[in-house]
Amino acid sequence: MKVHNFSAGPSILPNSVIKEASNGILNINNSGLSLLEISHRSKDFMDIMDKATCLALKLLDLENKGYKALFLQGGASNQFLMTAYNLLENKAGYLNTGVWSTKALKEAKLFGEAVEIASSKDKNFNYIPKGYSIDSDLDYFHITTNNTIFGTQIKEIPNTSVNLVCDMSSDIFSRKIDFSKFGLIYAGAQKNMGPAGTTLVVIKEDVLGKVSRKIPSMLDYQMHIDKESMFNTPPVFAVYTSMLTLEWLDKNGGIKSIESKNNEKAELLYNAIDNNELFKGFAAKEDRSSMNATFNLVNQDHKEVFDKLSKEANINGINGHRSVGGYRASIYNALEIESVKVLVEVMNELKRKV
Amino acid sequence: MKVHNFSAGPSILPNSVIKEASNGILNINNSGLSLLEISHRSKDFMDIMDKATCLALKLLDLENKGYKALFLQGGASNQFLMTAYNLLENKAGYLNTGVWSTKALKEAKLFGEAVEIASSKDKNFNYIPKGYSIDSDLDYFHITTNNTIFGTQIKEIPNTSVNLVCDMSSDIFSRKIDFSKFGLIYAGAQKNMGPAGTTLVVIKEDVLGKVSRKIPSMLDYQMHIDKESMFNTPPVFAVYTSMLTLEWLDKNGGIKSIESKNNEKAELLYNAIDNNELFKGFAAKEDRSSMNATFNLVNQDHKEVFDKLSKEANINGINGHRSVGGYRASIYNALEIESVKVLVEVMNELKRKV
Repeated sequence: MKVHNFSAGPSILPNSVIKEASNGILNINNSGLSLLEISHRSKDFMDIMDKATCLALKLLDLENKGYKALFLQGGASNQFLMTAYNLLENKAGYLNTGVWSTKALKEAKLFGEAVEIASSKDKNFNYIPKGYSIDSDLDYFHITTNNTIFGTQIKEIPNTSVNLVCDMSSDIFSRKIDFSKFGLIYAGAQKNMGPAGTTLVVIKEDVLGKVSRKIPSMLDYQMHIDKESMFNTPPVFAVYTSMLTLEWLDKNGGIKSIESKNNEKAELLYNAIDNNELFKGFAAKEDRSSMNATFNLVNQDHKEVFDKLSKEANINGINGHRSVGGYRASIYNALEIESVKVLVEVMNELKRKV
Repeated sequence: MKVHNFSAGPSILPNSVIKEASNGILNINNSGLSLLEISHRSKDFMDIMDKATCLALKLLDLENKGYKALFLQGGASNQFLMTAYNLLENKAGYLNTGVWSTKALKEAKLFGEAVEIASSKDKNFNYIPKGYSIDSDLDYFHITTNNTIFGTQIKEIPNTSVNLVCDMSSDIFSRKIDFSKFGLIYAGAQKNMGPAGTTLVVIKEDVLGKVSRKIPSMLDYQMHIDKESMFNTPPVFAVYTSMLTLEWLDKNGGIKSIESKNNEKAELLYNAIDNNELFKGFAAKEDRSSMNATFNLVNQDHKEVFDKLSKEANINGINGHRSVGGYRASIYNALEIESVKVLVEVMNELKRKV
């Protein structure tokens, strides 16, 4: 029986990608060798890295616009540190929309003046702050487009002359936005792009070279650009599987096509939350994420039955994060609408039962 | 036809591990889910991480001796930086035995006084310096036990009261040494432990907490210890496959048993190099690595024939590194002696032919 995987990350990947990744481990490109045991300098792997970076730029519509794509290690957490190390000379601004932006701000403070421009902490991050102003003297302004834990998402990317830096870990490749508004975008692979173990960094090269501190090689974006993500041995398997996922997305119509599917899934789920008096949503309606829907039972007495029904329907990974409670259904690119329908049906069944 | 894989890294893994890793991607622990799409906080993965760290300490005979094992990201290159960030307050000493120790020393210099205690650069690193003295005022003394590129290996671990820090990327788990001599050992997985994408760090906890600088979370060993390698999403697949490889080693008699097999392979290969006048070894005999044998043809006119014979025998990955030239046969734990016999037979065939 099929498992309906709503896990927040590491999370669902396309079935065809999983099969191909599994095959590549047995025998890559009919070489008789496992992907895991070939040199990262071999043609087989160099082609994989090249394809992955090209596809990332193509899908984001950032080809020939001065951007480079890198596949690094260390997750978004390492980017909290690297962005500040490479870009913070005098002062940076942060929009605080949740746990991850709070952490990003904390790490940046080790390298210079990093200030919170606006925050939604007053309401446990259930909305996106608006109407703030961005001083033009900032080295950069950092935002988190999608907040996995709270289920909020920035719908309008701020307009500013300041270098815009973005943690896009949980909604990259899910919706069409003008990616050329950003100086730097980073995203851990394990939501819409691949398995845990690699991080995509997309940089406009002209934002670099403006800080006076010496940067250790492994933290230096320019070094990784110069070495085309091969300064040291890359996380071969994670890059390969990311390439497969980007190929899958490209073959299926790219971001534009997946966005309409994502919107359809989100609408179905949020309608079920809004039209079923047993449930209530967590995030402010206008800021609701199309990737992670956070909701709860109005009456906790129904929890036992709802959990039982979910389990019987083979629904996986809908427990909410401890800082919000309740439920969280992550509906990333690879999740099919059939899975959302199963969840909605369980919510309706609960209503019929109680 | 079987490929004989002498690749220097990423390199050969046991066949059973490759099969199990491939299966885990399709369905982990009969959950109906891929290893790639489950939460890193799930019991399935927490058990994997726990097993991997316990096995690492067990195999190194470091259980209950004040050590912690971590699985991090970024390879040995990130450890060049992290060791200095966490341990260098006043002055550190480095033994320079090749490309990797040169890089480690370079990164350390960004954080304090880092001095070269001895070097074998005068002879293109074809030997291990000896007879140097280690001042007792050093914060730590850094060595690289095995030099993949040059095919040298430290046979006697230095005796010193100074905290001994070691890059053991290419010979960890290959031979019995007193691992409790070290304050910190690090090793990229992609030689004897697993696929590229994770790094094992084994730390004696009491070496930490002695520097005054503030350490960013992702570079802070204490943070990773406190969070049991789960400060951020770990590289799930690389940790899983490392666990499988450590299990394989454990079931096959551990380091003691693999060491005798490794010695047998090395003896066979070095005898072939020494007893065939068409070949000459690169490294000083007493410092020869049991993991990477570097050698060359005496007469380059034979190269074409030797390369052709090697190819016909399905031998892969024996080209030497550009800084040494010639050939390098890496004979890591997972390489069976049959593969070495095939290589030796090709060397003998060349002798018969020319």
